[in-house]
Amino acid sequence: MKRLDTRDADFETAFTALLDSREEQGQEVNKPVADILSAVRREGDAALCALTERFDNLAVTPQTLAFTPDEVAQARAQVSQDLLDALDVAARRIEDFHRKQLPADIRYTDDVGMTLGMRWIPLDAAGLYVPGGKAAYPSSVLMNAIPAKVAGVQRLAMCVPTPSGVINPLVLAAADRAGITEIYRVGGAQAVGAMAYGTQTIRPVDRIVGPGNAYVAEAKRQVFGHVGIDSIAGPSDVVVIADSGSDPRVIALDLLAQAEHDELAQSTLITPDAAFADTVIEAVEKELGVLSRAAIAGASWARNGAVLITRDMREAVELANRLAPEHLELMVDDPEALFAHVRHAGAAFLGRFCPEAVGDYVGGPNHVLPTSRTARFASGLSVHDFMKRTTFLSGGPDALRRIGPSAVALAHAEGLEAHALSVSARLDALAAKTANA
Amino acid sequence: MKRLDTRDADFETAFTALLDSREEQGQEVNKPVADILSAVRREGDAALCALTERFDNLAVTPQTLAFTPDEVAQARAQVSQDLLDALDVAARRIEDFHRKQLPADIRYTDDVGMTLGMRWIPLDAAGLYVPGGKAAYPSSVLMNAIPAKVAGVQRLAMCVPTPSGVINPLVLAAADRAGITEIYRVGGAQAVGAMAYGTQTIRPVDRIVGPGNAYVAEAKRQVFGHVGIDSIAGPSDVVVIADSGSDPRVIALDLLAQAEHDELAQSTLITPDAAFADTVIEAVEKELGVLSRAAIAGASWARNGAVLITRDMREAVELANRLAPEHLELMVDDPEALFAHVRHAGAAFLGRFCPEAVGDYVGGPNHVLPTSRTARFASGLSVHDFMKRTTFLSGGPDALRRIGPSAVALAHAEGLEAHALSVSARLDALAAKTANA
Repeated sequence: MKRLDTRDADFETAFTALLDSREEQGQEVNKPVADILSAVRREGDAALCALTERFDNLAVTPQTLAFTPDEVAQARAQVSQDLLDALDVAARRIEDFHRKQLPADIRYTDDVGMTLGMRWIPLDAAGLYVPGGKAAYPSSVLMNAIPAKVAGVQRLAMCVPTPSGVINPLVLAAADRAGITEIYRVGGAQAVGAMAYGTQTIRPVDRIVGPGNAYVAEAKRQVFGHVGIDSIAGPSDVVVIADSGSDPRVIALDLLAQAEHDELAQSTLITPDAAFADTVIEAVEKELGVLSRAAIAGASWARNGAVLITRDMREAVELANRLAPEHLELMVDDPEALFAHVRHAGAAFLGRFCPEAVGDYVGGPNHVLPTSRTARFASGLSVHDFMKRTTFLSGGPDALRRIGPSAVALAHAEGLEAHALSVSARLDALAAKTANA
Repeated sequence: MKRLDTRDADFETAFTALLDSREEQGQEVNKPVADILSAVRREGDAALCALTERFDNLAVTPQTLAFTPDEVAQARAQVSQDLLDALDVAARRIEDFHRKQLPADIRYTDDVGMTLGMRWIPLDAAGLYVPGGKAAYPSSVLMNAIPAKVAGVQRLAMCVPTPSGVINPLVLAAADRAGITEIYRVGGAQAVGAMAYGTQTIRPVDRIVGPGNAYVAEAKRQVFGHVGIDSIAGPSDVVVIADSGSDPRVIALDLLAQAEHDELAQSTLITPDAAFADTVIEAVEKELGVLSRAAIAGASWARNGAVLITRDMREAVELANRLAPEHLELMVDDPEALFAHVRHAGAAFLGRFCPEAVGDYVGGPNHVLPTSRTARFASGLSVHDFMKRTTFLSGGPDALRRIGPSAVALAHAEGLEAHALSVSARLDALAAKTANA
């Protein structure tokens, strides 16, 4: 863990190094991923099955790639009613929030009599990647699937690896709750390849979303252009801005909730109160003594944890903007006053009783968020990711007479004669008609 | 040119081959682009100047990388008033349309008393790539820059290659009209690298937009993640749906306006009227005899042109949807009736007097549009590309009591103890307070 104070002489150097360390590094998996994608594209199901046997230790045939409705129902039956209820609370709140995101079409007629606008249309098909193994999170299923459903996507395919055949029943229950009926037991770059290019069993989709490991991320990068993708997910991170009005243990737990995801996860406390910072650091150490995932959380905190002491709260927000965190907690009495100055954050959690963990599950906004400081330009998953826009322009003779000559002039200037002629031939026809009238 | 009829027995095979041929192929420039990007990242300005000398035959120093205000003013002075006026008509209409795209924030309080929403925030800095040489289009400068300005982006950097020092004065005049004050005479992958990673002279940006050649496209693909990018531009294409109510020469010119861009450009006519199709084909041949860019347009038409004869207009629209064109012209009496069934198109042009060339310059909607059938999932450039969203969640003790337990249940189910504790510790504190009250 790094403890930096903005009043230290070398703060800028140390903070810049911290920023650099948080940029996406990317494992060097370009070549193996290209090989996997090319095999899936060339051989389809055969490659998919062979790769699943190799990487997931699971014998699978084209006939058993998909989970059957019975398998899904059996999985659901293994889940307690309490958990199904919690899943339902989460799903309903996620649905409500994402429905508010549905964008409005534009259509208007302007001063020259042209009607123009923009129409939002859902994608035909989307593919959801859900990590398996230790990161098999049912909440991610809801967060990926529900925006697509709300957007109006007709077909949703989901891929989830099942190492040695193991699947978390709650993952299938979540898929079922989200209305996904097409679920394949494949993962890694091969799953991305199957959804991008299609195989005999898995039809191709138009956009692939969802977090994954370095292979999945690189595969998404390589299929981008052929299909759409969401942002490439790096290690998860949180910045907590807090003051001594919060219980140090509670703030420590918020930092550790991020750290327990992954040794690469990044937890940062920013506070103007150096004494409070030290009590939080102590509380983190104490909790690490009892936490079930202490090995992971401890490694994350030791390597990537940071505590930044600032002159005041305004400076705390400025540092948060430079970190452009995936998650930003404002654990203060008047969080809105600070939030007004936040420019770069994937999602913000305002107030002492609103920790990130609430948003991870049941808040409503999406928990698939821009990592590795990409909140500078990227956004969390939303219904927008499952829609695209068609602009349109409509006009008759009068509008063409008004603005056509400017198009002709610019086309000539660009040396594009056919462009100019396609407008001027119409203008000529109109002029001839007027002359004959 | 391929002439296919949907009533032919082998139509599906031939049409599928056509679709495949229009998917992005991508030249194999992965390695040279990676080398260029790594040189720029490592050596900054020195690499940028060396590469500009090598690829653009232009000796340049860090001091002369940027155009001076004087150089821009001199360029503007070389442009005729007529053209400046046309540029202004275009700019005003593009501004008007893109202002309508500005999205609304979301904020509401829900049934458990949580306040949640989503805030749109402009990027800090954007980079605009403008092709040079034969594809130096001033209209592209407006189309790239104005949405960024309307979105509220504070800093815009523009890169344009100037082979042997040649620059189209109208390109600089357009940049000036759009309010760009930071313009660099660099192009290719090295320009993308400079904008992504920054050099001593060019500060890094958050998102890079604008079309370019295969090197530029691959460079954007490789820097994606470190910065944002727009869709990767492939060859331009148009689908024209027409009937005999249009002059065959006018339709031929619309097809040729696309073909004259580039030998890889793709022009397709779809019509239910086989006789009309043949008169258009004849008109294309005739125009190719007189057109200034006949060599390019002729090669494009010969290799990538297509004429599809359909049973009816409804089938014409279905084929257009499968082609997912960048540009779609509906040259019929009632274009709105057809447009209602259009699902996949970057931009649509409705009515016999509204050809694509109007939209290329002065329509208002953006002409930077999804190519290579990516209109299935991608959209034209818009103000959205220059903004990002921060979601937020705000709640007090009461809201936490209502939904916190569901978060705790799901966190336990996912094996994330610190997540559960960060919520339950707060709930415990509230319970203790209530008990003591």
